[in-house]
Amino acid sequence: MDMNAEHSAVTVLGLGSMGSALAAALLDRGHPTTVWNRSPDKARSLAERGARLAATPQEAVAASPLVIACVLDYEALYTVLDPVAGDLAGRTLVNLTSGSPEQAQEAVRWAHSHGVDYLDGAIMTTPPGVGDPAVMLLYSGSRQVFEAHRPTLATLGDPLHLGTDPGLASLYDAALLGLMWSTMTGWLHGTALVGTEGTPATDFTPVAIRWLDTVARLLTTYAPQVDAGHYPGDDATVDVQIAAIDHLIHAAAARGIDNALPELLRAAMEKAGAQGHGKDSYASLIEVLRPAPRD
Amino acid sequence: MDMNAEHSAVTVLGLGSMGSALAAALLDRGHPTTVWNRSPDKARSLAERGARLAATPQEAVAASPLVIACVLDYEALYTVLDPVAGDLAGRTLVNLTSGSPEQAQEAVRWAHSHGVDYLDGAIMTTPPGVGDPAVMLLYSGSRQVFEAHRPTLATLGDPLHLGTDPGLASLYDAALLGLMWSTMTGWLHGTALVGTEGTPATDFTPVAIRWLDTVARLLTTYAPQVDAGHYPGDDATVDVQIAAIDHLIHAAAARGIDNALPELLRAAMEKAGAQGHGKDSYASLIEVLRPAPRD
Repeated sequence: MDMNAEHSAVTVLGLGSMGSALAAALLDRGHPTTVWNRSPDKARSLAERGARLAATPQEAVAASPLVIACVLDYEALYTVLDPVAGDLAGRTLVNLTSGSPEQAQEAVRWAHSHGVDYLDGAIMTTPPGVGDPAVMLLYSGSRQVFEAHRPTLATLGDPLHLGTDPGLASLYDAALLGLMWSTMTGWLHGTALVGTEGTPATDFTPVAIRWLDTVARLLTTYAPQVDAGHYPGDDATVDVQIAAIDHLIHAAAARGIDNALPELLRAAMEKAGAQGHGKDSYASLIEVLRPAPRD
Repeated sequence: MDMNAEHSAVTVLGLGSMGSALAAALLDRGHPTTVWNRSPDKARSLAERGARLAATPQEAVAASPLVIACVLDYEALYTVLDPVAGDLAGRTLVNLTSGSPEQAQEAVRWAHSHGVDYLDGAIMTTPPGVGDPAVMLLYSGSRQVFEAHRPTLATLGDPLHLGTDPGLASLYDAALLGLMWSTMTGWLHGTALVGTEGTPATDFTPVAIRWLDTVARLLTTYAPQVDAGHYPGDDATVDVQIAAIDHLIHAAAARGIDNALPELLRAAMEKAGAQGHGKDSYASLIEVLRPAPRD
């Protein structure tokens, strides 16, 4: 075990609830951790846990070879970093600020123009989950930079390197959050439906979670269909799903539940059916979601 | 082990792909299995596996104390069962035909009026999954009838008894399928998004499935919030999610992806925010989905 790598010094810029959770996880694992925040009062509890408080971004950046930034948005990021670009030279910036793939790509250009190693990242949990090895943190950009800091990054959660395009972490982040909102809203709709007959959410949810394992197996079946552009409907066809969703829509309508979500899903299925995918699997709906391939 | 219970005779009415899978699972576990279908050619491969072919529904019903019906819809169900109601008296009917909770409730009245024990069920898998002990089969209605036939039902998958209201299995079925379509469509949207940057579905999907575990933990956190009608937003608020979904919508729009689904989700979040849930958790969206409580 390389104790040096395990306990290398780290600076955290930005102490919102996520930045504070990152700093706390680093402190818990014994990393000398320097923190800075625009309003210093947020740093107090971290100081009690051993963090060094930097008075300025410059002092914070100078304290560590690895600087993790987690601020509100990219405007806040450049407000902090532009004045200290020279101090960052020769160091590594891991940017966990939420933004678009294009913003990440711009940031890597900014970093390289100042001689700064750069890695973009996305934290796939809420702050209480930071530090849990089961939680994914997604990174994209230089694999060398990622490998050099992997032991430190592993203190924050399980680090996954998605590829060298620095925009990938943001793109995955957006895609996965979309999956989360879709899943949570579908769950809430179902919870509302069974709730009208007196079933508590705490009864329905364990069944729903177990069902998500079955759904996950379907996704594993459908992923290669998407890549092949060929969607054999040998388990269940779009036409069969259209018939089945009417049961849901009628049952929910009869109970006064808002049906905007299942109506939208039905419309997407109908559109796929109209494009010749009625006998194909549900995976064929990707054809109505994405732009037509260019010739 | 009660070998009698383990190998009791069963009749399966309806040999669509699901009915055939049910009969095959029963034969595999050694149950004397009698089958009937309107068009007898579907029964041939089951006969080769040892099924007894009944020439009429009457003959099929007379063959077994337990009769499982899995036909196209309730119209087809009564077409088959009405003429043999007298033969069903004193036997148990397990109805796995897809339909509404109201249709299940009507069916239990029909059954009781003819002296037939009745259990309603829903099969939470596609036909290839039948017989897998990890797969859920949902049942509702008499618990005594369920317990009496549990060993036989367990040959088809893991049998769960949801409650005595016979409509519950259909209601859960609809709610869980809604969750499935929401999840699959969210996954397809995300797959389309990362696909525009060259990421194959087979690369994105394992990450998405792992992410669903995190989402499942959120559902477990949110279920008691729904039951309490109190949604503390201490991990992530609706306002934070609204800011985050704009990243998704912009990234997807820039890549030509159809945004109807995230736009709908955003509208639901906005509506919850407008109703005072901006600082609450995502679970508060159930308040905009379900009917207002009656006084």
